[in-house]
Amino acid sequence: MEGPRTIQQRRQDALAKLTEVHADVWVASASAEGIAHLVPLSYAWDGVCLIVVCDEASMTARNIRASSRARLALGGTRDVVMVDVVLEATVDGDAEGASTAEVYASQTDWDPREAEGDFAYLRLRPQRIQVWREANEIAGRLVMRDGAWID
Amino acid sequence: MEGPRTIQQRRQDALAKLTEVHADVWVASASAEGIAHLVPLSYAWDGVCLIVVCDEASMTARNIRASSRARLALGGTRDVVMVDVVLEATVDGDAEGASTAEVYASQTDWDPREAEGDFAYLRLRPQRIQVWREANEIAGRLVMRDGAWID
Repeated sequence: MEGPRTIQQRRQDALAKLTEVHADVWVASASAEGIAHLVPLSYAWDGVCLIVVCDEASMTARNIRASSRARLALGGTRDVVMVDVVLEATVDGDAEGASTAEVYASQTDWDPREAEGDFAYLRLRPQRIQVWREANEIAGRLVMRDGAWID
Repeated sequence: MEGPRTIQQRRQDALAKLTEVHADVWVASASAEGIAHLVPLSYAWDGVCLIVVCDEASMTARNIRASSRARLALGGTRDVVMVDVVLEATVDGDAEGASTAEVYASQTDWDPREAEGDFAYLRLRPQRIQVWREANEIAGRLVMRDGAWID
């Protein structure tokens, strides 16, 4: 096992994951009744928010619209970037959401505008980010708190 | 993209994942207030239940004890085995939980009995399993319903 990364290195590795293209994220959300949902989704990063797209009728869209929050895991189980997010905005792929749809299409391998269905673009703003690989990195895993990177 | 797998193949692939050793699972749980939690954990499979171990005080232990359910993802984002589970039992690593602790230690790369801390072994019984890789496998992804494999 390598030695633990510095907070600067972890922040850099978190940003590398956020800006990775053609990548997926695990999206955990919960209903008001306290039932957890989990799905993998493609994502894009616009510099401020993660963008994910899901069917308007999906459990994920309904949970996040209702609760305004979710918990996202990027990377593998032993190279984790864990991101607690709030819902910044929901847009469709037309007029108001055109730039969001462009960013999304440029970073993922599908374009919902060309697909059948009724899709919502969810812009999810990180509030808290934790970065760790193995047990020796559990300490010091917090790199963002209350939406601000920790120096 | 390969053609979609048959239900028999998907069931076989799900079992292969469940019986894999030194593997991790994403565990999504929710609080009664509807806040989702997500963590990666090591797991074992005793033929009936997945066994995960977490700190008694952790959010995951508290959520699953309170709600008796969780949603687990095995495999990668494009080779998914998604398992909705109910809590079958919680045991510690002593007396009553000795066999559970043995199974766990034999399939994972750590043994909580030798670690500092107050750990709970959670035995999680699958109720619903979905298996898919890409978009062409969304149809037909259900391989277990109400705790029974679908033929």
